[in-house]
Amino acid sequence: MSDSRVVIAVDMMGGDHAPSAVLDGVAEALSAFGDAYRYLLVGPQERVARGLEERGISPSHPQLELVDAPQTVGMDEHPVKAIREKPRSSIVVAMDMVKAGRAGGVFSAGNTGAAVGAAFLKWRMLEGVSRPGIATVMPGEKGPWVLMDSGATVDCSPLMLAHFAVMGDLYARQVLGLSSPRVGLLSNGTEEGKGNRQVQEAFAVLRQIPGIRFLGNIEGHDLFRGTVDVVVCDGFVGNIVLKTCEQLSKSLSGMIRESVMRRTLWKFGGLLCKGAFREIKRRTDASEVGGAPLLGVKGSCVIGHGNFQGHGVANGIRAVGELLRLQLNERIVEAVHQVAASSLC
Amino acid sequence: MSDSRVVIAVDMMGGDHAPSAVLDGVAEALSAFGDAYRYLLVGPQERVARGLEERGISPSHPQLELVDAPQTVGMDEHPVKAIREKPRSSIVVAMDMVKAGRAGGVFSAGNTGAAVGAAFLKWRMLEGVSRPGIATVMPGEKGPWVLMDSGATVDCSPLMLAHFAVMGDLYARQVLGLSSPRVGLLSNGTEEGKGNRQVQEAFAVLRQIPGIRFLGNIEGHDLFRGTVDVVVCDGFVGNIVLKTCEQLSKSLSGMIRESVMRRTLWKFGGLLCKGAFREIKRRTDASEVGGAPLLGVKGSCVIGHGNFQGHGVANGIRAVGELLRLQLNERIVEAVHQVAASSLC
Repeated sequence: MSDSRVVIAVDMMGGDHAPSAVLDGVAEALSAFGDAYRYLLVGPQERVARGLEERGISPSHPQLELVDAPQTVGMDEHPVKAIREKPRSSIVVAMDMVKAGRAGGVFSAGNTGAAVGAAFLKWRMLEGVSRPGIATVMPGEKGPWVLMDSGATVDCSPLMLAHFAVMGDLYARQVLGLSSPRVGLLSNGTEEGKGNRQVQEAFAVLRQIPGIRFLGNIEGHDLFRGTVDVVVCDGFVGNIVLKTCEQLSKSLSGMIRESVMRRTLWKFGGLLCKGAFREIKRRTDASEVGGAPLLGVKGSCVIGHGNFQGHGVANGIRAVGELLRLQLNERIVEAVHQVAASSLC
Repeated sequence: MSDSRVVIAVDMMGGDHAPSAVLDGVAEALSAFGDAYRYLLVGPQERVARGLEERGISPSHPQLELVDAPQTVGMDEHPVKAIREKPRSSIVVAMDMVKAGRAGGVFSAGNTGAAVGAAFLKWRMLEGVSRPGIATVMPGEKGPWVLMDSGATVDCSPLMLAHFAVMGDLYARQVLGLSSPRVGLLSNGTEEGKGNRQVQEAFAVLRQIPGIRFLGNIEGHDLFRGTVDVVVCDGFVGNIVLKTCEQLSKSLSGMIRESVMRRTLWKFGGLLCKGAFREIKRRTDASEVGGAPLLGVKGSCVIGHGNFQGHGVANGIRAVGELLRLQLNERIVEAVHQVAASSLC
């Protein structure tokens, strides 16, 4: 495999439905993306080979290479502990492949903490970037927006939040194709001066960043109605927001279903407009996006949702390919350098 | 008016639709709650008198007393500045009425920050309680739960979070009628050791509190599915969660409406099951709860949603009456004292 930039290491044991969902994803990627990528399938070699054969794919397919990783990090394992104790786990070995120059990036639908930890330890940070952040694309009334950081770094300095703003802005430009993304700092009110100490300090730093369109503080009400394109927060708040929204959508769907079933007339009406709900589900389906990139580290990693089936995995693989094609990391280093330079003057 | 415990001061100028929605609320309260309460109507006296007459109520009604407060704090004004510069505003004068022993509690659907600030400055804190918290009752798959604090105190020490746990627990017992509320600390994962520094430190304090059923860390996924009854977080996170959920529900409703309108068949189906959606709206309607109490201060204040119409205001008035009847503040002082005593041993 000559050009490692089109080689994607896939964590075959990551996710609630691994390895079968990941194998399905690789099969879909092979047929959908043609010869755009090559794949390092990292996991228990025999099990992966068997899974491929079950899907009618030869383990010696020219675009595939099997890399043995007999250990697995479970979804609920303590990340740092797991990385330390399982150096031959699929996620750690996948990161090793990038470090060794054998792959350009990694896709994993596994334990998020383990992916973040392994990338941080194995790859280290990009030049000038202080901490990694996860950029999750969320659906909104007026189109997608980016939640940055949605869970990688829990305690953040103002500079870390500034770097999240820069990386989120770049991601929105490059991947969502926005020409001038509106960036907001998530707070408990929109007025200047609102926020906890962390946000108040970060506000002063973010407004100084050259080249980003910083709208100031935003609040929870701004998140889904399209006021901003990039929402900056620490990974503690971002993770809570992300998971709360996931659960609220699920609970509301459940309440609707339950309520509609209560009367025959409603049930009938519900059946008739089922297509409308299917349409919304598609519009808000995380597996269409394929996962969220971990930004700021020296490598490209997309983290899929643990519940992904094959289609989500295939989209996640394509998302890694996109990051590599766009050379996002080179752009991040340049932009972060500009921030540092502007603060010197 | 003899017993101030049944006297409720109403901020006539609080809320997006003040004073008319508040006047409607007072009218509803008078007819719905009989002679359970008396009301101090705090606002521009003539305007309030005129509004009452328009509703067929005499300003000299035996249960009413008009208290003049010519100034108004707007919904978007800076709270502390407004309180300082407008000592004769309806919210400040309403708080003064309780301080002077003329009323037992306050209802306001106005500027939350101003209500919190005025209560804190005028009433001060309950003995032993470090900071105030807002206990918002939220709808969930398996019934209501309490978000504490949903916006009063943004930077919290572990002890403040412990006091929120104690107050939220008492509120769930007394007002929601739960015999042994499950209390969770909102974090970015459920495992012990998860969380930012604040949450990690608070965890150690919360697990020591005698008499509360502390389940440990919870995450966003736990909020609407009924895992816990009381969700403890600082007011920064709580405010973001509250507003994000409000907006997400609104956005999803909008998306459903929009999607259903796209085809005639779907539109027809939507019409047939409209009743099911109305039912959900009722189940999740904040105006049925009547607002959220500000706990920890030396007085009883319920803060309604700015968009309340008369029915929400009437329910908010009843919520103040409930707090007074239950003598929640006496119980809070006692419970917080037990926490302090247990940490001495």
